[in-house]
Amino acid sequence: MITSAANPQIKETSALVSKHKARRESGLFAAEGIKLYKEAPEELIEKLFVSESFEKNCSGLLEGREYVSVKDDIFVRMCDTKTPQGIMTVLKQPEHELGEMFPRDKDPFIVILENVQDPGNIGTIIRTAEGAGVTGVIMTRGCADIFAPKTIRSTMGSVFRVPFIYTDDIEETVLTLKQKGVRIYAAHLKGTTDFDEPAYSGGTALCIGNEGNGLTDELTQSCDVLLKIPMEGKLESLNASAAAAVLMYTVYRKSDKRI
Amino acid sequence: MITSAANPQIKETSALVSKHKARRESGLFAAEGIKLYKEAPEELIEKLFVSESFEKNCSGLLEGREYVSVKDDIFVRMCDTKTPQGIMTVLKQPEHELGEMFPRDKDPFIVILENVQDPGNIGTIIRTAEGAGVTGVIMTRGCADIFAPKTIRSTMGSVFRVPFIYTDDIEETVLTLKQKGVRIYAAHLKGTTDFDEPAYSGGTALCIGNEGNGLTDELTQSCDVLLKIPMEGKLESLNASAAAAVLMYTVYRKSDKRI
Repeated sequence: MITSAANPQIKETSALVSKHKARRESGLFAAEGIKLYKEAPEELIEKLFVSESFEKNCSGLLEGREYVSVKDDIFVRMCDTKTPQGIMTVLKQPEHELGEMFPRDKDPFIVILENVQDPGNIGTIIRTAEGAGVTGVIMTRGCADIFAPKTIRSTMGSVFRVPFIYTDDIEETVLTLKQKGVRIYAAHLKGTTDFDEPAYSGGTALCIGNEGNGLTDELTQSCDVLLKIPMEGKLESLNASAAAAVLMYTVYRKSDKRI
Repeated sequence: MITSAANPQIKETSALVSKHKARRESGLFAAEGIKLYKEAPEELIEKLFVSESFEKNCSGLLEGREYVSVKDDIFVRMCDTKTPQGIMTVLKQPEHELGEMFPRDKDPFIVILENVQDPGNIGTIIRTAEGAGVTGVIMTRGCADIFAPKTIRSTMGSVFRVPFIYTDDIEETVLTLKQKGVRIYAAHLKGTTDFDEPAYSGGTALCIGNEGNGLTDELTQSCDVLLKIPMEGKLESLNASAAAAVLMYTVYRKSDKRI
């Protein structure tokens, strides 16, 4: 059992939890909690840490598993949450390709996130995306790190099931999508097409912009249709993940994308 | 200028930021940032604190205003955010009544939150509610405190415009709504009615349950219709604020509730 915070394994895992750089350089990330442990694909799991209490109380969950046990107070210090569940899975970052977002049996339904900053928003959008049958999520480098603990938690495991990529050149990526017959829609404050108007038939991509600034002019110009989400009251915009949910479920409902 | 963290005004305001009890006992709350300062109704404002830097750089925003200036490092310690904008408004908690949710010129459209725990979810739901023309939000006492800093920030000012009440007896409140002709719908894992099926005409209430446990059996039994939000993949449920956004915009779109 590890009893010291100075243990190299603890230090490495703490860095995966708290530092983007450590995740980028190692190609690993850490996922805290029972749900993410249960949903993690076997082939990605690198290491498993459990707290002393977890080992005692939840040994059934650990049967046939190799794991490292850690003294409770050291385990807590390794975590991002204040009251961790006591199990931390270290995983390889899944790698995806754009091609995965074009399944054989249904039209591509892609969500593009441009400079979305809030880790909770990214995680929630990926979770909703799985529900709405999205075939892939494309993020610009300006988006928050999908492997940050809060994002991973917010996905509720969807991060293991929805293909995603980061792109360095979103305009080129959008051009590729268009060449493959995907129509590009965006939630936009200057949108004039009511979000409920299009049929969203065929390949569909939805762009969601930065929380404060919306979509860049460059990406806006690449879009085929700018959608308007009507709003009562004095509101300027919806929260990014709320707007994404409204739009994703509109596409899902209207198109033939429901299985 | 206040230069000490021991100053009673600073201590009181810090308590409003960090302690539910302090907010409850005083009937006050603190709202950080320029947006909330600008949107705060005049009659609720009790006191205004600005950081030394804010006073220097944004004096235009303070014209004709009484305010207390605070040394930068003391101001930061009073705040919930790591990089505060430098302006903190202390306000009376707005008080609403159920009757306000029944406007003369349109059907009531009410959102009921049962034991919703995440402050960000509550704030985002109130923000989306304003957009979707919701006439009021009813919360059970088991919900997170709407006056917590994160909730207030997430509302983006909607908290000043959407009437809300806490109820001690949700079943009685639902009974009152029913007697006034409101039909009660709920997002529910056991729901069998597709969320897009009802016409949502006339008075409509949408119930959203706790993040982990959903709606209680008691409230479930009080509902007229249990709605199913279809989901692809292996997802068990949507995030509470995403589900609320999908449903609120469905009601808004389908009913005659658009102005």
